[in-house]
Amino acid sequence: MSSASEKPAVVLLSGGLDSATALAVARREGFRCHALTIAYGQRHAAELAAARRVASSLGAVEQRTLELDLRAFGGSALTADIPVPLDRSVEAMNGGIPITYVPARNTVFLSLALAWAEVLESFDIYMGVNAIDYSGYPDCRPEFIAAFEQLANLATKAGVEHKGRFHIHTPLIQLSKADIIRLGASLGVDFSLTHSCYDPAPEGTACGRCDSCVLRRAGFETSGIADPTRYS
Amino acid sequence: MSSASEKPAVVLLSGGLDSATALAVARREGFRCHALTIAYGQRHAAELAAARRVASSLGAVEQRTLELDLRAFGGSALTADIPVPLDRSVEAMNGGIPITYVPARNTVFLSLALAWAEVLESFDIYMGVNAIDYSGYPDCRPEFIAAFEQLANLATKAGVEHKGRFHIHTPLIQLSKADIIRLGASLGVDFSLTHSCYDPAPEGTACGRCDSCVLRRAGFETSGIADPTRYS
Repeated sequence: MSSASEKPAVVLLSGGLDSATALAVARREGFRCHALTIAYGQRHAAELAAARRVASSLGAVEQRTLELDLRAFGGSALTADIPVPLDRSVEAMNGGIPITYVPARNTVFLSLALAWAEVLESFDIYMGVNAIDYSGYPDCRPEFIAAFEQLANLATKAGVEHKGRFHIHTPLIQLSKADIIRLGASLGVDFSLTHSCYDPAPEGTACGRCDSCVLRRAGFETSGIADPTRYS
Repeated sequence: MSSASEKPAVVLLSGGLDSATALAVARREGFRCHALTIAYGQRHAAELAAARRVASSLGAVEQRTLELDLRAFGGSALTADIPVPLDRSVEAMNGGIPITYVPARNTVFLSLALAWAEVLESFDIYMGVNAIDYSGYPDCRPEFIAAFEQLANLATKAGVEHKGRFHIHTPLIQLSKADIIRLGASLGVDFSLTHSCYDPAPEGTACGRCDSCVLRRAGFETSGIADPTRYS
């Protein structure tokens, strides 16, 4: 349960298992959590409903979904009419930045989280990025997060007035997918509420074949925790 | 006239006189200009129509207006039900960060420009920020721009593959408002097409009393160039 004495944090919540676990960590660390979900025109809009379920289940004080249609720019298999790669091994994924990369997405998301944090008088932003099983995205690397944290403290009125107080928390950044699943399970995350698939069936079941499904499934297998995902 | 041999640039275009002048500079510097306007729920939505007029007048190859309703967060006189300050002197404006500051706005705008630039295979972003007659906004300072440029090169696939090529152009950052007006006039900017007022009348005329009007009017007076603004 949240209380008014807790410090506020903004948690970027996609509805996937990583951000759900990041929210659980933020709750354990004593923050009153304001969950921010971005409806960016993603192919897998099923994750938006998952974000609402997860926020409620993990005791966020509120969850907001902001509309920002990045299909206006396109350039990704998640926001344009480009097929999602299927049946790639984890090794193949590590060979480069994939077509599911959405240009500057995490920069845009962190900027929006920063805007809300400043209004909430919060200096803490949580994001479930991961640099290990990360599908090669540049904006999941520690050096990117460090640069954004520095920027946040220059960009804002709150940053100027409370020099250096903004902190971007990335508790999963050095964990494997299996370790994230173990951590989430230990904190009570109900993974059946989460959605990871990039290319779900209309009824919301996971394809089991996109990079995100492959990483998730392998993570559950390695973790020894039962995979509750409903595959097509 | 633009030609296909020109390099592409994204120009953040609000519809005010600063960003109009920044667009004119980008054209003079030989860029094929893609103008980006953000409909962020601003009180002065009259500037959106101005942005379309200015883009067309100055030879941008396209102009897009992206919807992103920052009223979801509020926290500013421009995005919440908070009165806009009136009749302040320029000296009074320099006394602190005003209530018209929109939390993290320029970070959000630059992030969106970066997203579009990456899709366009552009490495050049123009923004008409100004650190002299700047109403005290932290995200108009050179150190903020430098930090964002560094971030852009870490955040993106294009930045990783072409290390350090992203450049945030801020041609007005060290100019006074009068100098911006002189520069714009010398480059053929038709200031009658631009809109600066934070609190316009329903028919779009300028109040003449908000910080933005006061700075604009004083700039025209100092510049010796006739002010074409229609005041209420």
